[in-house]
Amino acid sequence: MIIARVIGNVWATRKEESLRGLKFLVVQPVVMKYKETGEVYLEGRGDTLVVGDRIGAGETELVMIASGSSARQSLPDSHIPVDAMVVGIIDKETFASESGDHYE
Amino acid sequence: MIIARVIGNVWATRKEESLRGLKFLVVQPVVMKYKETGEVYLEGRGDTLVVGDRIGAGETELVMIASGSSARQSLPDSHIPVDAMVVGIIDKETFASESGDHYE
Amino acid sequence: MIIARVIGNVWATRKEESLRGLKFLVVQPVVMKYKETGEVYLEGRGDTLVVGDRIGAGETELVMIASGSSARQSLPDSHIPVDAMVVGIIDKETFASESGDHYE
Amino acid sequence: MIIARVIGNVWATRKEESLRGLKFLVVQPVVMKYKETGEVYLEGRGDTLVVGDRIGAGETELVMIASGSSARQSLPDSHIPVDAMVVGIIDKETFASESGDHYE
Amino acid sequence: MIIARVIGNVWATRKEESLRGLKFLVVQPVVMKYKETGEVYLEGRGDTLVVGDRIGAGETELVMIASGSSARQSLPDSHIPVDAMVVGIIDKETFASESGDHYE
Repeated sequence: MIIARVIGNVWATRKEESLRGLKFLVVQPVVMKYKETGEVYLEGRGDTLVVGDRIGAGETELVMIASGSSARQSLPDSHIPVDAMVVGIIDKETFASESGDHYE
Repeated sequence: MIIARVIGNVWATRKEESLRGLKFLVVQPVVMKYKETGEVYLEGRGDTLVVGDRIGAGETELVMIASGSSARQSLPDSHIPVDAMVVGIIDKETFASESGDHYE
Repeated sequence: MIIARVIGNVWATRKEESLRGLKFLVVQPVVMKYKETGEVYLEGRGDTLVVGDRIGAGETELVMIASGSSARQSLPDSHIPVDAMVVGIIDKETFASESGDHYE
Repeated sequence: MIIARVIGNVWATRKEESLRGLKFLVVQPVVMKYKETGEVYLEGRGDTLVVGDRIGAGETELVMIASGSSARQSLPDSHIPVDAMVVGIIDKETFASESGDHYE
Repeated sequence: MIIARVIGNVWATRKEESLRGLKFLVVQPVVMKYKETGEVYLEGRGDTLVVGDRIGAGETELVMIASGSSARQSLPDSHIPVDAMVVGIIDKETFASESGDHYE
């Protein structure tokens, strides 16, 4: 899975019938990086994506995204043509710094 | 899913029998980027792709594309050897700017 | 799908029994690029791949390639361990230039 | 599969019901590189990922990760929306140096 | 599929039960490149991977690798959590040079 920040929404009036009612978010993937002090921070990296959401993630929230056929396992009907879904909203991260300290 | 702009078409006379009648578009993936003013714009990025289309997207339209086995869920027969399909035509996007304003 | 140019062949005497009889091509993916004049041309980009071929593509031909589980849908037995197959041989492309003209 | 080092954990209170009880690790992929002396070392490369873990990998351990639908084969129910799982904890690697020597 | 050179082995004592008995190789992907003279050579490129092997590839051999759900089709039980397998050992390649000559 990847972690990403919600940055917007898209709408499509003309679309596959089976997609009706599904909300689509635009997200910016983020990665974990080490500061020189050993602390960890989140940084946007890579290309923005469009993901389906049934959990109710809001703008600026950090979400966990499953891709590929795995994304479809979160839908009531696994034959819906969606390849990325929000599967969780991150509320806490902890990281070990390179010196062994922990950061949240 | 990714968002992409339709830029052309390809034709293949010799092809898998099961692909007959399916229209193939050439698309340029686009990503969302922030201007220094905080506004969001779309920028072409990454390599062009060929995708199947049953919705009827026209040149220069923005489309939403599902990839992998998910693409095949949009076909009447999920055994057709296609790994990317147009699943929607984008008609509106909204984004939160970094300062909290919204742009369409 | 991606478009690629056929550049060679590979042979493997020791291989999965189910791959016997399948021809393997080496291909160079190509992308569409815009010239300053607005015209479109094809350019090799990205890493070479090995793909199965049952259609009969020849050296220097442009082929359309399906990847992942979709590739296997073009085989008589979808349990063959192949993740990329030629599904069509491109004979014509048209592109809209940035100024609205069309090129083949 | 890829090899990655465990660097942290994430928690999501709001998530797909089927993910309850599954532990999520943050990992940094690593690759093997050759020194000028021919020796091999591990180097972090690429973006951090979130992976499920049922084996019990600890911080700083090297793990082997399966992705895509293959990840789900390690779960009791293959309909859980997870696209990357720890499938092993590496305890030994051997590499041939370019000069034919072996390193662990 | 990709072509890769075998460069090492990894062992994992703690792992998914279903992986017992499967051999894991470390491989370096290789791509085909053109020299200025038109000749083709193989060059290591991209990140090292871990792949399962049931064919018996030895160090420094060139192998053909299937990824994703396709890799699992080479296993007696397609529910084993493995996403990359050796499916062949390359013993010959031929390439057309840009000038039309052939190289092996």
